[in-house]
Amino acid sequence: MDPPTSPDDEAAAFFRAAPPFRDRDAVAASLAAFVARHRARGGGGGGGGPPAAAAGVVCVTSGGTTVPLEQRCVRYIDNFSSGQRGAASTEYFLKAGYAVVFVHRRGSKQPYCRFLPEDSFLDLFELGEGSEIQVPESHTTVVKTAISSYRKAIDEGLLLKLPFTTIFEYLQLLQLVSTAMNCLERHGMFYCAAAVSDFYVPWESMAKHKIQSAGGPLNMQLSQVPKMLFILRNQWAPSAFCVSFKLETDPDILIQKAEAALRKYGMNVVVANELANYKDVVVMVTSSGKTTMSRRSKEDDLEEQLIALLVKMHSDHAKQSNPEQET
Amino acid sequence: MDPPTSPDDEAAAFFRAAPPFRDRDAVAASLAAFVARHRARGGGGGGGGPPAAAAGVVCVTSGGTTVPLEQRCVRYIDNFSSGQRGAASTEYFLKAGYAVVFVHRRGSKQPYCRFLPEDSFLDLFELGEGSEIQVPESHTTVVKTAISSYRKAIDEGLLLKLPFTTIFEYLQLLQLVSTAMNCLERHGMFYCAAAVSDFYVPWESMAKHKIQSAGGPLNMQLSQVPKMLFILRNQWAPSAFCVSFKLETDPDILIQKAEAALRKYGMNVVVANELANYKDVVVMVTSSGKTTMSRRSKEDDLEEQLIALLVKMHSDHAKQSNPEQET
Repeated sequence: MDPPTSPDDEAAAFFRAAPPFRDRDAVAASLAAFVARHRARGGGGGGGGPPAAAAGVVCVTSGGTTVPLEQRCVRYIDNFSSGQRGAASTEYFLKAGYAVVFVHRRGSKQPYCRFLPEDSFLDLFELGEGSEIQVPESHTTVVKTAISSYRKAIDEGLLLKLPFTTIFEYLQLLQLVSTAMNCLERHGMFYCAAAVSDFYVPWESMAKHKIQSAGGPLNMQLSQVPKMLFILRNQWAPSAFCVSFKLETDPDILIQKAEAALRKYGMNVVVANELANYKDVVVMVTSSGKTTMSRRSKEDDLEEQLIALLVKMHSDHAKQSNPEQET
Repeated sequence: MDPPTSPDDEAAAFFRAAPPFRDRDAVAASLAAFVARHRARGGGGGGGGPPAAAAGVVCVTSGGTTVPLEQRCVRYIDNFSSGQRGAASTEYFLKAGYAVVFVHRRGSKQPYCRFLPEDSFLDLFELGEGSEIQVPESHTTVVKTAISSYRKAIDEGLLLKLPFTTIFEYLQLLQLVSTAMNCLERHGMFYCAAAVSDFYVPWESMAKHKIQSAGGPLNMQLSQVPKMLFILRNQWAPSAFCVSFKLETDPDILIQKAEAALRKYGMNVVVANELANYKDVVVMVTSSGKTTMSRRSKEDDLEEQLIALLVKMHSDHAKQSNPEQET
């Protein structure tokens, strides 16, 4: 058998060999309902007339994907990401009136609780004299704001949280979300901040049981993960506004890698960031140039500026006519 | 240069090449103070007479270690472990009167909050009408019990929590804790439930920057991690009572692997468990035979039985005279 060559073939081969996505039907149903509700609200061009307003729906991906090394998995390769960027960005998208599909790594940072101490539950709560639950004075304001903002987003149906762990789950979820959001046309947005594995072990060539250590050093060969952003852009949701991220540790190659991703996958924006200072500086790369953004103070979130600019760009994008795909 | 051959040489080579442990002095100082306090309480044979009581100190290790693949680490290999076993066991050791050094993976399950929903903070708390913080009726009892049990353990100085992430940090921490606990002699116990990497990339041969995916498939060669339990048993804390765990996915090799570990590292007990049912069944392997333990009901913790039996065995061990090491 010849190896697959086109991105389409590679993607199809990846999905064919992936273990089935659990709860696919339930997730697809909740996505369909979420999108339909916000499309009716004005987040899409359907319904026989122009949308009522530019209120959009954004899919934020956040946290790292894992690559299992064994089918009954004890060991896996992980991509470092706390999920801080995605959680913060989700808060600012909600504030800007967006509905958010938050596709996140299980256990990564969640919107409205980024500020929490590591073992937040036990370190934050105490029992009062009447054995009522208390929060230390120093934290009451942030805790109360967090609880009320989160409840509001959930109660108003503006936040749909979908968790993943493995690269298989992540890409299956990305396909589900983007095909569901395709009907929103130019009102849909993808903000792909997840740290996605570049290499993986195809399911069928994976060890079934825990790899034994008695056999001496371990040699592993990993295959490349197909570049699904290309498929998202070209097939799953071609009219949506697409933002991806490029993280490097070596500043010398960062911008050139971001520019290459912009061209190769047809992104609207690639946000370039460096591991050493990703909270302080990003460079937004678009076809019309580069914009550097810096955090103004330690109390500021860089995501506030970033989302403000992206919301503006997305609004311009949504106002344009709707050819199959712009370049 | 010839490759190192003895376990000692391998261990020394591993530590020489490891990145320095952050906060080593602060951790060593807090360990020394913790051990001294409990030794005075009767947890050791020092002070010119027999210990006052058999109140012991146990080091519980919990959660999985990571193996970085790059020095400025974006990718790493991880060992699956929620930390459920270690967290539950810590609660039962505390209940039995032990002081516990809880050596745990950052972000893994913590004692007294095993029952929490995934995003516990936001899913558990609400604001009342007077904007006071509330917990839904269904959860108030467990939440209040958790907060008060945790506070009690911390306030009475019975729980010292020390976090790790990488295999380098874990083994450096294990060495620090076991050399600090060596003065407790037979009153010390090690309960090594952490899922420790068998393979790693030595620091000096590690890629400095993020590995690029443009170069096609990735080939990796991993070295074996030295068997530090052997060193712990023979050098760091030779009189302590040592319990280790053996996890396999293949039931056919589990018991033989556990028996081999018992002999090879001189453990007092090896607890054999299978990935598919580790919460329901374990087999305790000792030099005098095997004991199978099963969970009685879904509401029960298997750890309750396990710790009860280990406490009994440790108490017998502590009553024996103190040769350099038993076999």
